[in-house]
Amino acid sequence: QSRFYHPIGIVGAPFARGQRKDGVEKGPDYIRRARLVAKLGAQGHQVKDYGDLKFEDVPNDEPLGRVKMPKTVGSANKQLADAVKTVKKNGQTCVVLGGDHSLAIGSIYGHAAARPDLCVVWVDAHADINTPLTSPTGNFHGQPVSYLLRELHSKIPVIPGFSWIKPCLSAQDIVYIGLRDLDPGEHYIIKHLGIKAFSMTEVDRLGIGRVMEEACDHLLSKGKRPIHLSYDIDAIDPSVSPATGTPVKGGLTYRESVYVAEEICRTGLLSALDVVEVNPDRGKTEEEVSSTVSAAVDVVLSCFGQLREGFHPSNYQLPEP
Amino acid sequence: QSRFYHPIGIVGAPFARGQRKDGVEKGPDYIRRARLVAKLGAQGHQVKDYGDLKFEDVPNDEPLGRVKMPKTVGSANKQLADAVKTVKKNGQTCVVLGGDHSLAIGSIYGHAAARPDLCVVWVDAHADINTPLTSPTGNFHGQPVSYLLRELHSKIPVIPGFSWIKPCLSAQDIVYIGLRDLDPGEHYIIKHLGIKAFSMTEVDRLGIGRVMEEACDHLLSKGKRPIHLSYDIDAIDPSVSPATGTPVKGGLTYRESVYVAEEICRTGLLSALDVVEVNPDRGKTEEEVSSTVSAAVDVVLSCFGQLREGFHPSNYQLPEP
Amino acid sequence: QSRFYHPIGIVGAPFARGQRKDGVEKGPDYIRRARLVAKLGAQGHQVKDYGDLKFEDVPNDEPLGRVKMPKTVGSANKQLADAVKTVKKNGQTCVVLGGDHSLAIGSIYGHAAARPDLCVVWVDAHADINTPLTSPTGNFHGQPVSYLLRELHSKIPVIPGFSWIKPCLSAQDIVYIGLRDLDPGEHYIIKHLGIKAFSMTEVDRLGIGRVMEEACDHLLSKGKRPIHLSYDIDAIDPSVSPATGTPVKGGLTYRESVYVAEEICRTGLLSALDVVEVNPDRGKTEEEVSSTVSAAVDVVLSCFGQLREGFHPSNYQLPEP
Ligand SMILES: [Mn+2]
Ligand SMILES: [Mn+2]
Ligand SMILES: [Mn+2]
Ligand SMILES: [Mn+2]
Ligand SMILES: [Mn+2]
Ligand SMILES: [Mn+2]
Repeated sequence: QSRFYHPIGIVGAPFARGQRKDGVEKGPDYIRRARLVAKLGAQGHQVKDYGDLKFEDVPNDEPLGRVKMPKTVGSANKQLADAVKTVKKNGQTCVVLGGDHSLAIGSIYGHAAARPDLCVVWVDAHADINTPLTSPTGNFHGQPVSYLLRELHSKIPVIPGFSWIKPCLSAQDIVYIGLRDLDPGEHYIIKHLGIKAFSMTEVDRLGIGRVMEEACDHLLSKGKRPIHLSYDIDAIDPSVSPATGTPVKGGLTYRESVYVAEEICRTGLLSALDVVEVNPDRGKTEEEVSSTVSAAVDVVLSCFGQLREGFHPSNYQLPEP
Repeated sequence: QSRFYHPIGIVGAPFARGQRKDGVEKGPDYIRRARLVAKLGAQGHQVKDYGDLKFEDVPNDEPLGRVKMPKTVGSANKQLADAVKTVKKNGQTCVVLGGDHSLAIGSIYGHAAARPDLCVVWVDAHADINTPLTSPTGNFHGQPVSYLLRELHSKIPVIPGFSWIKPCLSAQDIVYIGLRDLDPGEHYIIKHLGIKAFSMTEVDRLGIGRVMEEACDHLLSKGKRPIHLSYDIDAIDPSVSPATGTPVKGGLTYRESVYVAEEICRTGLLSALDVVEVNPDRGKTEEEVSSTVSAAVDVVLSCFGQLREGFHPSNYQLPEP
Repeated sequence: QSRFYHPIGIVGAPFARGQRKDGVEKGPDYIRRARLVAKLGAQGHQVKDYGDLKFEDVPNDEPLGRVKMPKTVGSANKQLADAVKTVKKNGQTCVVLGGDHSLAIGSIYGHAAARPDLCVVWVDAHADINTPLTSPTGNFHGQPVSYLLRELHSKIPVIPGFSWIKPCLSAQDIVYIGLRDLDPGEHYIIKHLGIKAFSMTEVDRLGIGRVMEEACDHLLSKGKRPIHLSYDIDAIDPSVSPATGTPVKGGLTYRESVYVAEEICRTGLLSALDVVEVNPDRGKTEEEVSSTVSAAVDVVLSCFGQLREGFHPSNYQLPEP
C-alpha cells in the first residue's frame, strides 16, 4: 500500500499576527503534544519534524489603512514559503501546523515554487478572500487567497513586506468546502471569478460524498496534479472544535471533517497540508481544547491514510493454528 | 437581486390557549428582542411591525368534550385571520410570531382569503391534523390542519367560536416535513387522503436536499403559487431548540432547519410564514432559551434571503487600489 | 398490518465474561426496567419473556494464550444457543438482551440450528471478527464472527469449551454497518473474504438510506431469508449511547440508529435480534445511562414496527360528528 513509506515534513508555524486573538500561536505545541509525529510514524510514515519557525515582529510596522502589521505578516510568510519550498525539494509531503490562516500565503506560495501545477482545497467556514481594500477588519487571516490569485492581482495595493509575492493560482485551481460566513466583497469575487464553492448549503443539499466527488472532479478532471489542502479548524462545527478564534455554528460534523481528509488522501495527490486556527486559549474548558486538538490530529492522520474501514499491511499473514 | 425591497409585515401573536403550558405567549417578545426586525432591515427589506395582537379569554368558554376553550381559540384565530389578510392586502409577506400552533388556523385562513391559490409547507415534529374527535388531548395546537382541509369538513363537529371558518385547503396543497410523533387518527388521515409527508425517516433516507426538491415539486409542478410556510420550532432537534412545549428527539439538525428555509426562499414564492411554539419558560437554562430563539430567528432570516454562501448587492463594486 | 400479532420471545443474557469491564451483565435488567416488554405489547405484539439465563463461571478455566475464560464463554454460549433455538422452534422472533457481544456466537448458532438459511446484519463500531490468534486483547467479544464463518474454520485453534460449535455462516451471508475501529487482522479477513462492510466512511459517502438499500440487496437479492440483526449499542455515537465498554467517536446518529432498525423491520424478515454492550456502569451520569438504555429500547421498538411516520390499526375508523 502506498500508505507506507510516505515521507512527511512537519513545519511548526506559531504565528498569530494575522488576527487579533492571543493563543493561536500555541497551536503547533498543542498538536505536537497530542503525539502527532508518533502517530504518523505508527501509520508507517517516515516523518521529519523541522521544528517551529521563529517569527519576530518587524519594527516600525505601521498599519496601512485597516491592514495591521503588514511587514510582520509579510516577513513571516516569506520565512514559511522558504521552509515549505525546502520540504518539497526534499521530496516530502509538507504539513504546516498553524498559527492563523494568513500563513497560507507563504505555505501555498512556497509549495507553488516547487510544484507550480498545484491546486488548492480550502476547507473553512470563511472564504479568506478579502482584498486589503474589501476587508472589513483588516485582519490578514481573512485575506490570504486574494494575494495568491492571478485574477485579483490588479485589485491588490502595494503593501510593505509583500513585494516578494506574485500570484501563483488561477480561480479555477481552488475549491472551497464548508463556507458559511462571507463578506459581500468575498461573495462578489467568488461569483465574479466563477470559483467553485461548496458552502454548507451545498453540503446539506448534496451530502459530503457528492461534494468531495465534485470537488475532486473540478480540480482533477484535466489530469493529476499536486493538491494543497488548507484546513481551517473552524470549518468543523464549534460543538467539535470550539477552541478557535472565529467559530461559526452549523459546521462540518466530526464525521464529515474526517471524510474530507480521507477523500483527499484517496486521490494519492496530497502534496501539502495546512492545519490552522487551533487556538487553545479560546477553549472554555480543557475538554473544549482537547476536542479541538484531537479533531486537528484526526484530520492530519486521515490525510495520511488512517481509514475508518481499517488497514492491514500488504504483507499481512493470517496466523494458522 | 429580488432579496432587496421585499416588503414584510410582522404580526405578533402571543397566544397560549391552544395548549396547556404557560410561556409560549412570550415567543413574540423574545424573538423581537433578538433583533429580528433590525436584522431583516439589514438584509435590505422594508419591514413593518404591526405589533402584538391583544387576545382575551372569552367568558363562559365551556369545554366541548375534550376540546378546551373553543370560543377563546376561535376568537383569537378570527383576529389573526383578519390581521394576516390586511398584511397581504398591503402587499407584504406576512410573518406571524407565535404563540402556539393553533394560530395556523387563522394565519392560513386569513392568508387564503387574500391568496386563495396558496399551498402550505408544514414543518413540525407533529402533524397537528387531529380532528376534535380524534384528538387524544383536546389541545387545539394538535388540530389546526383538520379545520382547514376540505376533505375533512364532514368530520369536524360544530364548535362554538368556529362558525366563521370554512376549509380553504385541499389535501394535495400541503406537504409535511419533519414528522416523528403522530397519533393513530393523524396517520390514518394522512394515508387516507394521500397527503405528502416527509417524516424524519424520509429525511434520513433521502437527505434534506431531495426532500426539499420533492416537496417543492409536489406543490409547484402545476405552476407557481404562493407558499405559506408554517414552521413549528419543535421540528428542530431538542439539542438545538429545547425551549418548546412538546420536544421530540431525533429532529432536524440546525443545518437542515436552515436549509429548509433557504430552499423555500429560493422558490421566490414565500407569501406568509408562521414561527410558532417558542416557549421561553420551557428552557432549563438561559442558554437553552437563547439557542431556541436564535434558531427561530435564523429560520426567518433564511426565509428572507440570508444565505450561507454569502451575498453581495447587485451594484457591488470591487474597490481598486 | 403484519406489525400486529408478531410473536416475540425475549431472552435475557446477563453475561460479561467476553470482556473485562464489570457492568455489562446489568444490561437486561436496565432494558427491561425501561418497560420494553410493555411497550412491545402496546405495539400489538404477543411477547413472551423467557427471563434471564443463569450463567456460572466454569472452574479451572485457564487462559489459552491471550484468550480469557474459554470454558466459561463456551458454556454460556451453549446455554444461549439452546435458548434461542427453543424460541425459534416456538415460532417467535427472538430478542437477546446482552450482555457482551461474545453472546452472538450462541445467539447466531442457535438461530441457525432452527433457520439454517439465515443471514446476518452486524451493526457495530467493531468487526468482532478476530480469530483467537489475531486478537490483540484476547477478549471474546472481539471474536464472535470468526467462530461462525465457514471460511475461517481452519484458522481457529481448538479451544476448551467450544467443541460444540461448527461454522454456520458464509462470508457472503453477513453485512457490517457502522465500522470505525478495526484491528489489522480483522481488516485483512474482511478484504480477503470479500465481506460486505459499510464503515462510517461509506455511511458518510452514501448516506444511511443507500447503505441500508445496498445492505439488504446484498443479502436478499437471491431471495427472502431470515435476518439475524446483531446490534452492538457502540455502533451509535457516544454522544447518544456513552454507557458502553468500548465507545468510539464518530458513530451513527440517533436518527440513523433508528433508521437501520426501521429498514430491517420493513423487510418483514427479522427473525432474531441481539442488543448488546449496554453497560450501565460505564455511564458517567444517570442521564448517560438513561440515554443509552433509551437508544437500545428505541432500536428494539423500531425493529418491531415503531415508525416515525406514525401508525394506525388496519381497522381504524375515523370518528364522525
Ligand atoms: Mn481561514
Ligand atoms: Mn475560518
Ligand atoms: Mn405544531
Ligand atoms: Mn410540534
Ligand atoms: Mn463494538
Ligand atoms: Mn460488538
